[in-house]
Amino acid sequence: MPTKQSSALQQAIWEAINSKTKPVGSLGRLEALAAQLASVQQTLTPTAGRCKLTVFAADHGIAEAGVSAFPQEVTRQMLSNFLAGGAAANVLAQALGVEFAVVDAGVRGQAMAHPALISRRIGNGTNNSAERAAMSAQQFKHALDVGTLIGSQDEHEVACYGEMGIANTSSASLVAAKLLNLPVARLVGRGSGIDDDGLIRKQRVLDAAAQRTPAQLGPQEAMREYGGFETVMLTGAIMGAAASGKLVLIDGFIATVSALAALRLMPEARSHLVFAHRSAEAAHTAVLEALDAVPLLDLDLRLGEGTGALLAWPLVRAAAAMLSDMASFDSAGVSDHTSLNLK
Amino acid sequence: MPTKQSSALQQAIWEAINSKTKPVGSLGRLEALAAQLASVQQTLTPTAGRCKLTVFAADHGIAEAGVSAFPQEVTRQMLSNFLAGGAAANVLAQALGVEFAVVDAGVRGQAMAHPALISRRIGNGTNNSAERAAMSAQQFKHALDVGTLIGSQDEHEVACYGEMGIANTSSASLVAAKLLNLPVARLVGRGSGIDDDGLIRKQRVLDAAAQRTPAQLGPQEAMREYGGFETVMLTGAIMGAAASGKLVLIDGFIATVSALAALRLMPEARSHLVFAHRSAEAAHTAVLEALDAVPLLDLDLRLGEGTGALLAWPLVRAAAAMLSDMASFDSAGVSDHTSLNLK
Repeated sequence: MPTKQSSALQQAIWEAINSKTKPVGSLGRLEALAAQLASVQQTLTPTAGRCKLTVFAADHGIAEAGVSAFPQEVTRQMLSNFLAGGAAANVLAQALGVEFAVVDAGVRGQAMAHPALISRRIGNGTNNSAERAAMSAQQFKHALDVGTLIGSQDEHEVACYGEMGIANTSSASLVAAKLLNLPVARLVGRGSGIDDDGLIRKQRVLDAAAQRTPAQLGPQEAMREYGGFETVMLTGAIMGAAASGKLVLIDGFIATVSALAALRLMPEARSHLVFAHRSAEAAHTAVLEALDAVPLLDLDLRLGEGTGALLAWPLVRAAAAMLSDMASFDSAGVSDHTSLNLK
Repeated sequence: MPTKQSSALQQAIWEAINSKTKPVGSLGRLEALAAQLASVQQTLTPTAGRCKLTVFAADHGIAEAGVSAFPQEVTRQMLSNFLAGGAAANVLAQALGVEFAVVDAGVRGQAMAHPALISRRIGNGTNNSAERAAMSAQQFKHALDVGTLIGSQDEHEVACYGEMGIANTSSASLVAAKLLNLPVARLVGRGSGIDDDGLIRKQRVLDAAAQRTPAQLGPQEAMREYGGFETVMLTGAIMGAAASGKLVLIDGFIATVSALAALRLMPEARSHLVFAHRSAEAAHTAVLEALDAVPLLDLDLRLGEGTGALLAWPLVRAAAAMLSDMASFDSAGVSDHTSLNLK
């Protein structure tokens, strides 16, 4: 974590950026990204050599209420798809040089056996949070601890986390509503693409689910009541990665709600987070605003799985290279604009 | 170039995209980018294995009038910086796995000798276009032909082009004003960062320069009167690359004005162009609007050199991988949302 002596480092970082052979400020948000990475790594020559995407998958009891455009069995089918390398997250990670891992945090059905699968099953899917708490206090703590361990053990400089779980947009809307003390109706969207009738049903289900508990909840209570095993793990992973000095690329709506919960538990993680993209799921913007976060990308994505986070990885690489590898006006013998002498 | 039979291909491309294991449309602009690449390559399995950035550098006579924040000698110094690998374009290309080349299109002073330099000098900088035509008709044709050859010879699937030349923001503002029949005052900005006094001077100089000729000019005339050797070459390169079936990533304001000129000469190149980013130079937005183009990225960049185009290359890679490598609902055995049966 950056400490009080950071202000001297901050100044040195910006002096280094401004000495590079380019007009001051002309690399815009890439410069701020470079400064953030340098600050996280406590150096004037940051590196972004390796990145890993970990996708957490689990099932949600509230899927029974028909809140998703897809049947619940798709979570398990997608787990197989991740293991076979055929999902969007796999092929984007491959195309962008990012390592990939997938965690079973509690997908319904028998535990799957696959050499590449990290099995950390907290339960056989959560309870239906429209009726009762999604998970027990023990399950919540277990999921958070497992996630924290995964985040802190990762040896890459930059971490991406993704999620997959049918109905987890509903879960995230409920958690966000309780953390931000907002009516859940303001945070309900089409998720994976529910139709008009489905949206009305989803709104009714989520409204009833929200009525079960007070309008505002703390992070533990909000996640225990409405969260998912995969999204609680994601919260833990963000905390573990930040605590161990990594930069963390935050994906879309669901991952941002996990980040919001992580920041309630560990505010000092904020400086480690990069909000990668603005999701087409409208509720994302409300959560980003609550976090005072302006994402790097706006590409109308709404897939999850960490796909938006992945697309910000090349920007981090470019930012690190700018600060670590570009020549300065002095070193390259290029005239600065201060050398200009015009009437 | 795509032909009339393209509509069958277009339909097949979108069927392929929609069969992938993700909610329909959930990869947003990446899907449109994949469709464009597939259309350009006339295939359902597009590839984006290699990309090259070619930076064209030249000097502008109008720099004498004090329209830039930097002295004219910086063009030559930056040419050395490109050759030494220390400029932003070099290190970003390196970080993103893009090959790099630099062309001397007419930098003032003696021809530079360097094994990596592609020397295609059209002249010793252009004339001061505030007083007379920037170049002769022969020079214009020569520069356009050289650029077209470079664009067509390139063997990479995707091309980025960049420019460097002190005062070329002024040149681009004048060319754009004449092509779009707009007052040049609407297209003048701070370029590399000119101060308030400088901006007033720049506006006065450009206004006087624009008065020399009719309010609207054709592409040849606009570029001959006000263009630069590097930006005319860039126009040719875009045409050559499009004609030879490549996807072309268009950088910021100056490159977009070169693209505008290219499209006036060769409208069918449009389907090959990807507008990579929105520059912080406000005039860029006016030119993008005239082209009905919405760029992929908006990162407050205003450097040129192709740096914004480079940052879109990973998006092209991701888009190609999505279409060519992702599993379909059928192949992965994942239930489509149409299999959902809810009351």
